[in-house]
Amino acid sequence: MSEAAETLDGWYSLHLFYAVDWATLRLVPKDERKEIIDELTSFLRDTATARSAKEGDQAIYNITGQKADLLLWFLRPEMKELNFIENNLNKLRISDYLIPTYSYVSVIELSNYLAGKSDENPYENPHIKPRLYPELPHADYICFYPMNKRRNETYNWYMLSMEERKKLMYDHGMIGRKYAGKIKQFITGSVGFDDYEWGVTLFSDDVLQFKKIVYEMRFDETTARYGEFGSFFIGHILNLDDFDQFFTINS
Amino acid sequence: MSEAAETLDGWYSLHLFYAVDWATLRLVPKDERKEIIDELTSFLRDTATARSAKEGDQAIYNITGQKADLLLWFLRPEMKELNFIENNLNKLRISDYLIPTYSYVSVIELSNYLAGKSDENPYENPHIKPRLYPELPHADYICFYPMNKRRNETYNWYMLSMEERKKLMYDHGMIGRKYAGKIKQFITGSVGFDDYEWGVTLFSDDVLQFKKIVYEMRFDETTARYGEFGSFFIGHILNLDDFDQFFTINS
Amino acid sequence: MSEAAETLDGWYSLHLFYAVDWATLRLVPKDERKEIIDELTSFLRDTATARSAKEGDQAIYNITGQKADLLLWFLRPEMKELNFIENNLNKLRISDYLIPTYSYVSVIELSNYLAGKSDENPYENPHIKPRLYPELPHADYICFYPMNKRRNETYNWYMLSMEERKKLMYDHGMIGRKYAGKIKQFITGSVGFDDYEWGVTLFSDDVLQFKKIVYEMRFDETTARYGEFGSFFIGHILNLDDFDQFFTINS
Amino acid sequence: MSEAAETLDGWYSLHLFYAVDWATLRLVPKDERKEIIDELTSFLRDTATARSAKEGDQAIYNITGQKADLLLWFLRPEMKELNFIENNLNKLRISDYLIPTYSYVSVIELSNYLAGKSDENPYENPHIKPRLYPELPHADYICFYPMNKRRNETYNWYMLSMEERKKLMYDHGMIGRKYAGKIKQFITGSVGFDDYEWGVTLFSDDVLQFKKIVYEMRFDETTARYGEFGSFFIGHILNLDDFDQFFTINS
Amino acid sequence: MSEAAETLDGWYSLHLFYAVDWATLRLVPKDERKEIIDELTSFLRDTATARSAKEGDQAIYNITGQKADLLLWFLRPEMKELNFIENNLNKLRISDYLIPTYSYVSVIELSNYLAGKSDENPYENPHIKPRLYPELPHADYICFYPMNKRRNETYNWYMLSMEERKKLMYDHGMIGRKYAGKIKQFITGSVGFDDYEWGVTLFSDDVLQFKKIVYEMRFDETTARYGEFGSFFIGHILNLDDFDQFFTINS
Repeated sequence: MSEAAETLDGWYSLHLFYAVDWATLRLVPKDERKEIIDELTSFLRDTATARSAKEGDQAIYNITGQKADLLLWFLRPEMKELNFIENNLNKLRISDYLIPTYSYVSVIELSNYLAGKSDENPYENPHIKPRLYPELPHADYICFYPMNKRRNETYNWYMLSMEERKKLMYDHGMIGRKYAGKIKQFITGSVGFDDYEWGVTLFSDDVLQFKKIVYEMRFDETTARYGEFGSFFIGHILNLDDFDQFFTINS
Repeated sequence: MSEAAETLDGWYSLHLFYAVDWATLRLVPKDERKEIIDELTSFLRDTATARSAKEGDQAIYNITGQKADLLLWFLRPEMKELNFIENNLNKLRISDYLIPTYSYVSVIELSNYLAGKSDENPYENPHIKPRLYPELPHADYICFYPMNKRRNETYNWYMLSMEERKKLMYDHGMIGRKYAGKIKQFITGSVGFDDYEWGVTLFSDDVLQFKKIVYEMRFDETTARYGEFGSFFIGHILNLDDFDQFFTINS
Repeated sequence: MSEAAETLDGWYSLHLFYAVDWATLRLVPKDERKEIIDELTSFLRDTATARSAKEGDQAIYNITGQKADLLLWFLRPEMKELNFIENNLNKLRISDYLIPTYSYVSVIELSNYLAGKSDENPYENPHIKPRLYPELPHADYICFYPMNKRRNETYNWYMLSMEERKKLMYDHGMIGRKYAGKIKQFITGSVGFDDYEWGVTLFSDDVLQFKKIVYEMRFDETTARYGEFGSFFIGHILNLDDFDQFFTINS
Repeated sequence: MSEAAETLDGWYSLHLFYAVDWATLRLVPKDERKEIIDELTSFLRDTATARSAKEGDQAIYNITGQKADLLLWFLRPEMKELNFIENNLNKLRISDYLIPTYSYVSVIELSNYLAGKSDENPYENPHIKPRLYPELPHADYICFYPMNKRRNETYNWYMLSMEERKKLMYDHGMIGRKYAGKIKQFITGSVGFDDYEWGVTLFSDDVLQFKKIVYEMRFDETTARYGEFGSFFIGHILNLDDFDQFFTINS
Repeated sequence: MSEAAETLDGWYSLHLFYAVDWATLRLVPKDERKEIIDELTSFLRDTATARSAKEGDQAIYNITGQKADLLLWFLRPEMKELNFIENNLNKLRISDYLIPTYSYVSVIELSNYLAGKSDENPYENPHIKPRLYPELPHADYICFYPMNKRRNETYNWYMLSMEERKKLMYDHGMIGRKYAGKIKQFITGSVGFDDYEWGVTLFSDDVLQFKKIVYEMRFDETTARYGEFGSFFIGHILNLDDFDQFFTINS
């Protein structure tokens, strides 16, 4: 039996993807439509206060292509708070015009492959704490994808020794470092929570950096041999101030 | 030919997952909505009496994310009783607002890998009986996933000898034991009943324990080489007393 | 090139699975609902006469779980008769409330692996004829699943010699025999007719026997190495006399 | 690099599968329903004239099971003519009651594995020309399925030498020949046009022959090692004269 | 670790596939239908001006078969401009009658396998610039498909050395060259942007050339061993001048 790497776990995470049902929303009289959008905006301004209270954070993006129109990403200290947010969203009037297209349940995770053994409580380490309970960047673009480590017949990540995995993860991390300043990366663990083992959420002001890092990493053995990917979602930031315009239908 | 492990089989099991059609439910006048919820609550209070009568049990959870809103899990002595419950549920007025999203048919199962041979009737063994006909815990969180043992070209669980499988299952069980007191686990067999071979249902007051146990087991050879998983569902407990509030739409 | 086993082919077979659209059916006034159910019942009493005329048979079951509510299984001497039954079903008023969820097109098949060569016409053999043109049992439970023989890179059923396949099928058949009296099994061939190579339909008064036989066979090399399964459907018998009650909605 | 076999390409091909929305069609008043069916019948009598003009052909079948109700197969000299037929079909009133369930875009293809090299223009060869621009048989039954040649790690069709492929295709063809007179087979190439590499359309007055040929070929190395199949569709002929009856709803 | 090939990246790309909801569009009064089509045509004439401004381009095709009716392909200098186009399309009245069926997010890409090292800025190279910021041909037919390079256990593209990949890509390119003058090919990179690694869009006045090139390349080792394909979409050009006729419903 191979030794599991320890993980540090921070805030719980819920990515919610929705398509807007424009055809039905168009049928709503303009005034009522405004009320519906105002209710949503007001709800999201409320949930946004978690950031300053250090009790979570959120990110809102307009997804490119037909997989979804909206991504709402929420972080909270307890999983049940994410249930409550989702339930409350479902009760908003806008939810009649939002079609759920994908969601992802996970928890902010730092894997401990590179950690030395010490007496320190890592949850109090000032370098680690802000990574477990992060303030999300307000970057122009977001990229989300879920992933697994493969358990194939020849190449099986979970049958590698801790030493082998450490070595592979070190090389993998070296690529990531080259993108420091260009990309902010958040890993969320979802083993036992959702259908893949991890979610990866990237932020950048330059959307091309997402392609560059994911492509470069594909040649890294960790990914080339062991990486298995779900769907990729790309989006452009959608500010609450722009919600009115985003949902406005002229005709 | 490899020898099949004997199993002990208890109550039949039906997991029913539903999304709530909030958009349509919102259209129902408040009074009528209350009647509809009351009818459902009353139905579930009725089926709940099986517990005290030792003729089954049930669990109700609010699923996190877009895979479902509700999980209703029923256990009964006969499979046909599960058909009757499902049919009766379908005839409740709430069913017009519940969209079936997934279900799982199985039976509470104890595999006998570790059993010694004895003359005793295991179904009368006081340690075994309550595990075949269990009282479900009212824990804060639930986790459900279906799984198979792989039959790949190199690694094929069903071509292993009984001795090899016993050894692997023993190591596997040792990990499970470390979580005693934190997690309650129920295995239901579904070979011949549904699309995977087993269902796993976990209960815990600490949702993070689900990730910890599933992740740790992934490094165990039984899982690393032979485990194959379906979708993972996570939920927070939903008490019948909270049904009114769960279904209440303010506007 | 490996030699194909000869098959004996009997009645053509059509499994039709439907979910009931309870929400829409509820909207139908009680009297009209009764007319609709009566029309369906009367149609199925008509098709049922094929049994006494030795021109086919049928079985009707209530499927457990959300894959379907109803299974209607029809056997007929000609494939086109199955088209006519399906088309006529579609024209019944009930079909507005039945959502097709799965179907399977095949033909009752006996594989001839164990047959000796003789001058006899097997279709006239009194042991074989009733198996090709069977009277279906009215057992409490049904189990249906489609399956393939694998054509993997190492283990490829269709590259085995006739001798090897005969040996494997003999061992496989020995397991089946242990369940004589408990389970009645019908194999239908669907190569060229539907997406899997065979359908398996089992009947038993004890639903647990389905799990026992399928699990035991999984350790048999024929299945362990070469078996590939589609979805499993389990159901409880639904008598035409109980149709009224099955479709009755109280409220 | 392995040498590609040359192909001869005839008429472009479009298989269109539709389910009939009986529930909605039933709501249409009888007279209007007749107009709608007459419009469709008249459209298909028009497209049918391509046959006598040697500018294409068509086949109409009633599919067995729930994959579809109707198959409309069209052959034409230009791909864009198939677009026009499909677009015009979509504008018929019947299209409100037809639910597209599957389609396949391809071109009648003869593979040239067995051809000798000669100066002759094969498109003018009197044995080849009618196979590239065929008159379709009006057989009782049709069978359609798409297929690939596998590119697995050990067995990869496209890495075989021309000699090896010729040998395999010769043996494969020998099986086909045994069914001459019982089955008419049309191969359509779809590499670059649709999701599989070929479509296979078989016609026979005896539906059992489809099972026999596909099963026998499965033991042939070409298929056993390299064949990969999509869905199988089986249907019974539907004459334009029977359209009225096919679409008639009594109640 | 293997060295990633450098890529040159041009305009961002969004392929949008839609089915037309003919049944609902038919219900719209003729005059209103004309307004709706005029609005769409006018929108697409606006976006078309990007071509002369060298700030993008577009292509509009009528897809053959049931995967879609329309393909709208947009190229723009910034990803967010594609979001804006898609959002604005969604707000047009026609969007009530367009059902999204597939989309693809990528960026025009030239892989640098054959580039020599020089001091030159390739983005200013007069041979390269028009390939990164192309004027799309107005060919009769289009073909689109997404693809991956395989990462299998034996054959893993990303574990090959740069030299091996260069050699394979050179041979691969040689086939492409044979089709110069017959086919125009555009490669768009989508690693990190969408579910496959590349999109391939081909244009030709002779649709058969798509089958010829894709089939010939399938025997090339790069494709035979390492190519993995998504769905193939084929379409015939749809000029804005023909939109009226395309959407006109006679009855």
